[in-house]
Amino acid sequence: MTTISDIAAKLGISKSTVSKALNNATDISAAMRKRVLEAAAEMGYISRKSYGAEKKLCILIENMDYETPNQFGHDIVQGFLQMAEADGWSVEVVPLTMEFQRLTPYGVFMLDHGYQAAFVLGFSLLDPWMQEFKTTQVPTVLYDNYIKNNPYIASVGCDNQEGIELAIKHLVGLGHKKIGLISGPLDSYILKARYRAYLGAMKKYKLEVNEDYIGLGYFVAESTRTYIPRLLEQGVTAILFSHDVRAFSAMTECSDRCIQVPRDLSIIGFDDLPMTAYTTPPLTTIRQDRIGLGRCGYFAINCLLGGLPIGSILLRAPLIIRDSTGPAPVE
Amino acid sequence: MTTISDIAAKLGISKSTVSKALNNATDISAAMRKRVLEAAAEMGYISRKSYGAEKKLCILIENMDYETPNQFGHDIVQGFLQMAEADGWSVEVVPLTMEFQRLTPYGVFMLDHGYQAAFVLGFSLLDPWMQEFKTTQVPTVLYDNYIKNNPYIASVGCDNQEGIELAIKHLVGLGHKKIGLISGPLDSYILKARYRAYLGAMKKYKLEVNEDYIGLGYFVAESTRTYIPRLLEQGVTAILFSHDVRAFSAMTECSDRCIQVPRDLSIIGFDDLPMTAYTTPPLTTIRQDRIGLGRCGYFAINCLLGGLPIGSILLRAPLIIRDSTGPAPVE
Repeated sequence: MTTISDIAAKLGISKSTVSKALNNATDISAAMRKRVLEAAAEMGYISRKSYGAEKKLCILIENMDYETPNQFGHDIVQGFLQMAEADGWSVEVVPLTMEFQRLTPYGVFMLDHGYQAAFVLGFSLLDPWMQEFKTTQVPTVLYDNYIKNNPYIASVGCDNQEGIELAIKHLVGLGHKKIGLISGPLDSYILKARYRAYLGAMKKYKLEVNEDYIGLGYFVAESTRTYIPRLLEQGVTAILFSHDVRAFSAMTECSDRCIQVPRDLSIIGFDDLPMTAYTTPPLTTIRQDRIGLGRCGYFAINCLLGGLPIGSILLRAPLIIRDSTGPAPVE
Repeated sequence: MTTISDIAAKLGISKSTVSKALNNATDISAAMRKRVLEAAAEMGYISRKSYGAEKKLCILIENMDYETPNQFGHDIVQGFLQMAEADGWSVEVVPLTMEFQRLTPYGVFMLDHGYQAAFVLGFSLLDPWMQEFKTTQVPTVLYDNYIKNNPYIASVGCDNQEGIELAIKHLVGLGHKKIGLISGPLDSYILKARYRAYLGAMKKYKLEVNEDYIGLGYFVAESTRTYIPRLLEQGVTAILFSHDVRAFSAMTECSDRCIQVPRDLSIIGFDDLPMTAYTTPPLTTIRQDRIGLGRCGYFAINCLLGGLPIGSILLRAPLIIRDSTGPAPVE
């Protein structure tokens, strides 16, 4: 375990200078503080501030909305706060950019703010800190991302495979054979997982997997506009969407084109956002229990802080059947 | 949700008779009580006793020793008790036989004893109640077993795949090429998982998978005696065992045959039982944090009781390198 003496020895400075830097004292230059924090992070120094001062955790968010109840991240944050604050932690929610991650190493950021652990939401595989997570010694819990072999990292998420199998089974029961997928790009761990789950479920039910039934695109409205007509031309009668927001966009697009849901096309979303029950028609979707995900995130952080190397927690992803799915149109 | 009235209506008896049966009153015949409990279990009736009387959970154990610290189940039970008792639950540890399961349905057993949920250890795929777990509505957490699509069931275990990959990687780094596996029979979920993980890791490291390098047998000493010489004849230089107790047996067998561990044969166990550090030589093994497994088991039960459909919790399975593994013998 790295100590203040180790850092002082490595940098050839006094222990008190290291201590001042780590405790954000005012009588030390910014340049020296930066040097100390970088060395400390590199050497795997873990902040012990929790024993003296404030118990602090952070929720790091990139590329995920969380401020209102219909935004995906909202309830995850709430579930985490319910548990963490009851245990006496102060929690800061920190939105991040890729640019910021490129400029500041993760370990330095955590030491700089005195956070003892982080819950990380919305990161894609392209986020710079994802590389650092492979070797960090800071207790870190990732939602919908997975890092192998690092006992300081845990994952929480939903069982995408089970959820998507339930969705395909439901559609097969309604007589659908040509089932499409419209998803965000495969630069995220979770969209890759959902894509593989779709392929696996199609295979399980002996349905044709055809790349013309699949549309991947970053921009929601644009990819809806592009792919809905293209998939319908192929004779697709049901589409699974990687997120509810994409399914909402598809319902608007269908309405504009006088395509009736579910008479002409069945639609299934993913997430079960609160508004799914109130769309026209109400959306069939795969539920992620977001309050539960937040609570499990805190449980996992608590395990890591206590030295228990939890690897992953998966929630079930039940299918919530509403009115956007119906019998396949007669050919 | 099934009520006492539903059960009374179905059986054509009074509500008070149903209530007496469920509350184990003395002024009702054993035959009538049995009839009521069976109907209640079949209809998915959940005991609400927790609101009035005692909060009771059970740990059901089949085919696993747990009474002393070197027995595998001991720390799992302790970890569970630490958490559950702190939350005000009374917990009963109930050893079971297959015969008992054949005679008494799971749902009836749970109602009969007023248990609100169960933590299930040591079941093989052949245990009769495994069938009932597919549809039960009683909150149930399984160690090292998995049931698909039932939101009343959760699983806890270790990441066998990650652990076994670490073990094979370690042996490859020591120059071993012919790596064997000696395991119990594949009638358990977890031994199947370890078997598949072994095949996957061998493939990953481009090593020959040969069925002559694999020995599966129920009886520990007998299969050790049979397979150790057979694998050595095939030129195997390292063996992975499905359990520490099998590795211990192998060390005794090697000692009897003047085979030096690790000079002639490297040995890796699975579990990290306390005595692994004190064998001659101390055993390299894959760790299962059993206190942690018990704690996670309770967390999962707590989630299910609160309506959160947790599916699985996996702990990391780190490789603990001691002295039973060494460089591959020069050919």
